[in-house]
Amino acid sequence: MNNKKSHKHNELILKPLGIDTRNEHTVYMRRDCPVCVSEGFEALTRIMVSHGDRSIVASLNVLDNEALLGHEEASLSQKAITSLKVEAGDLLAFSHLPPINSMSAVRGKVYGHRLKESQIQDIVSDLAAGNYSNVEIAAFVTACAGRRLDIDEIIHLTKAMVDAGQKLHWPAARVFDKHCIGGLPGNRTTPIVVAIAAAAGLTVPKTSSRAITSPAGTADTMEVFTNVNLSLEEMKRVVKQENGCLAWGGSMQLSPADDILIRVEKALDIDSEGQMIASVLSKKAAAGSTHVVIDIPVGPTAKVRTSDDAEELSQRMTMVAEAVGLKLKIVITDGSQPVGRGIGPALEARDVLAVLNNEGTAPTDLRERSLRLAAELLELSGKADPGNSHSKAETLLNSGKALKKFIAICEAQGGFREPMQARFQHPVQAERAGTVAAIDNRKLAKIAKLAGAPDDKSAGVDFLTPTGTKVESGQTLYEIHAESQGELDYALEYYRQNESSIIDIT
Amino acid sequence: MNNKKSHKHNELILKPLGIDTRNEHTVYMRRDCPVCVSEGFEALTRIMVSHGDRSIVASLNVLDNEALLGHEEASLSQKAITSLKVEAGDLLAFSHLPPINSMSAVRGKVYGHRLKESQIQDIVSDLAAGNYSNVEIAAFVTACAGRRLDIDEIIHLTKAMVDAGQKLHWPAARVFDKHCIGGLPGNRTTPIVVAIAAAAGLTVPKTSSRAITSPAGTADTMEVFTNVNLSLEEMKRVVKQENGCLAWGGSMQLSPADDILIRVEKALDIDSEGQMIASVLSKKAAAGSTHVVIDIPVGPTAKVRTSDDAEELSQRMTMVAEAVGLKLKIVITDGSQPVGRGIGPALEARDVLAVLNNEGTAPTDLRERSLRLAAELLELSGKADPGNSHSKAETLLNSGKALKKFIAICEAQGGFREPMQARFQHPVQAERAGTVAAIDNRKLAKIAKLAGAPDDKSAGVDFLTPTGTKVESGQTLYEIHAESQGELDYALEYYRQNESSIIDIT
Repeated sequence: MNNKKSHKHNELILKPLGIDTRNEHTVYMRRDCPVCVSEGFEALTRIMVSHGDRSIVASLNVLDNEALLGHEEASLSQKAITSLKVEAGDLLAFSHLPPINSMSAVRGKVYGHRLKESQIQDIVSDLAAGNYSNVEIAAFVTACAGRRLDIDEIIHLTKAMVDAGQKLHWPAARVFDKHCIGGLPGNRTTPIVVAIAAAAGLTVPKTSSRAITSPAGTADTMEVFTNVNLSLEEMKRVVKQENGCLAWGGSMQLSPADDILIRVEKALDIDSEGQMIASVLSKKAAAGSTHVVIDIPVGPTAKVRTSDDAEELSQRMTMVAEAVGLKLKIVITDGSQPVGRGIGPALEARDVLAVLNNEGTAPTDLRERSLRLAAELLELSGKADPGNSHSKAETLLNSGKALKKFIAICEAQGGFREPMQARFQHPVQAERAGTVAAIDNRKLAKIAKLAGAPDDKSAGVDFLTPTGTKVESGQTLYEIHAESQGELDYALEYYRQNESSIIDIT
Repeated sequence: MNNKKSHKHNELILKPLGIDTRNEHTVYMRRDCPVCVSEGFEALTRIMVSHGDRSIVASLNVLDNEALLGHEEASLSQKAITSLKVEAGDLLAFSHLPPINSMSAVRGKVYGHRLKESQIQDIVSDLAAGNYSNVEIAAFVTACAGRRLDIDEIIHLTKAMVDAGQKLHWPAARVFDKHCIGGLPGNRTTPIVVAIAAAAGLTVPKTSSRAITSPAGTADTMEVFTNVNLSLEEMKRVVKQENGCLAWGGSMQLSPADDILIRVEKALDIDSEGQMIASVLSKKAAAGSTHVVIDIPVGPTAKVRTSDDAEELSQRMTMVAEAVGLKLKIVITDGSQPVGRGIGPALEARDVLAVLNNEGTAPTDLRERSLRLAAELLELSGKADPGNSHSKAETLLNSGKALKKFIAICEAQGGFREPMQARFQHPVQAERAGTVAAIDNRKLAKIAKLAGAPDDKSAGVDFLTPTGTKVESGQTLYEIHAESQGELDYALEYYRQNESSIIDIT
């Protein structure tokens, strides 16, 4: 606290207030503090905040409340505290922000100029350093929307994104991966494909994401079975031992600039084909992959709507992949229906295990999609050709070798667990007899989330009657699973408000 | 406090924390509060906040600090509290945001589609209601950047902006105004032009803005002379009595959507010609003007760089003005040099008064620009023709009639005051003899702001040696004026760091 005596005109003492503003750096100052007054800072000014030789850029929120901060104190958002590596009582120095040079390149793009390679590198490294405000990120995302990036810009963006983060290296000369463009509900093929490919001897160090807005991501589903929070060293040990792993990729810092762009893209619901290609391929290249199968589901409510769009996207992805040294195989699949039956981590895990176990009740769509993608990986590796790849994949699955490999990977990651059952289950029944004509996937996903997914692993929706199913009056259409009565009630309240629009029976 | 017993699952109690986030609505909730948990809200989610039958849209910041809010409490930013008209202890209800329909039109524009009239009306009314996040506003600004709005879109945008705010009505059939595109330092012609025009019998109900990033706006300068915070009723009384007024326009709620766009445009430093035209003309039309003189200064560091650009801008402005029923006269002027000598409210007020007083030391450039614009207004009104308008304006100024009218307007607004002197003055002297070759206006403005302008009215820079002036070593180039030793020191610290780059003597 002797800081108070010695600090300079542009310094204040950090008092954390515990405010989470997500990826954005925010600084909180009293309107009447000496720094605000003398520097002329006002709300939303972008400010350089320094401690020792580290600096970050933050947006200012001004406090009129004398109770929160002392006259010589300032606060930072949680992300800013982490980035600057400071703690309560540390002295923070504040100064006007020198212009972010790369924003002039963004402005050029806004006015319609092409971005040069060096400009893209500068933009991406400023993005990764957290130097852009959300408003500036929004301008960049908007300027690149649709097809506003040409093929060279996409290649440079992909390379710059790889360079801005950590890169993984593997002893194997060829490293395999798969990716699906635009999630399809329940499309949990990854654990099955990785198990088959690793059983065939391919190196498959798979990292996956957690759900952002959906009821489950692959990492959430895998966490039902085993530990997914692997350090890089642990991941390497598992892959060395079992050829593959199924880990959470979030802590790897692969292509961090991409994570920042994606948040703002989602908030705006604006797509940029170029950024999407750079996003997918930069993560694969940074993860050390050399051969990748890309699944593009096509359907009226999927991310890619028509097979023409899928063809064009394939061509552009393939060109960018070649430029960054990735070998790609693109598979265009049916994206008109959800896959499997479970929606939510444990329910999806149950479907995955049923396929690996060759159970008679296993969802055939999930099994078939997984076999097709695994076959493509086997072809890409040269271990099979188009004439026998599917049967080789099927043999690995039917023989139980894929299951054995899957359990071995889980054991190596920390131990295998069976999916758990939720404490509360509520059946939703057909009001009348007929045929299931249409399903609102978005609303089913919402029920699963209100029931607690993905944080409650066992929560979600077990969906029993796909489109085309003939149902009797009173037959169960789906079950809502929840860990607490409160959450079940909450999901049911939403169900009752939307009852007639979730499943259409004709 | 019996609220605590009765509130529903989606309600929390307001505890204001006094956080100013400018125009953006922000809501603060504890991560573990029942609403965050059950609704699945996370940081930066856009949320509908309701109290009684009023609602606003706000962005969520999540608090991890139990000391700031109770388990059943939430907070709002100052702007959100004002918009929702709530106070401490009120119950707030929270719900997921129904999609803002007009954002789909913004996305269409982002992808290159033209905006229809009804889409523009929806966007502007959502903007004015505060329904857009800053990120969404940034996407709209970016999608309209440069010349991306065609003439019909600009006309519809202008009309929608007028309709979204208050409109002023005047008894006179013809109502006159002037506007300058892109501020030029010290270009304080408005008080002089209004005094001459009102003395000639024109109705000139002038509203002006305060400084946003500059050392003084016209309203700040006028506040040196008199009260500028007029209610609409007071403004009408002054205009009825004296033909004109010189008031602050900020409380009038003219074209509120424009104020919201301008903040984000400034933050991004992105210009949209279409939005600029809509901004200027919507404010004039909303203020009830019918005849407007527009001053476009052209110069290498001005907003408009070349006379070709100025010509094109003139044509487009004139077309839009006709469509919204405004008669325009555009005057293209020299924008290569600052105008007058003072930088800061009182120093600029002193220059204005010197011109109105016909003092020998009055800055001739300020006098000449004012006469030219006043002459254009007289022509527009039909009271003069190109052959005699300048001499008529000059007669009104030289005879003292303009000064008399100016003082009468000030008296009607609450009393006339002479500009005050600052308590501290510090001369900055030439290090060597030579000729003033170049001046960095931006840095001089920065010194004026560090010295306390515009909040300290008398603070600023008195600039004595325009480009081309021959100076001796030790001659005073400019004086820094400040109200406190601390602020003077602060301005001097910046001066010493930048000494050689402020004024170039060759």
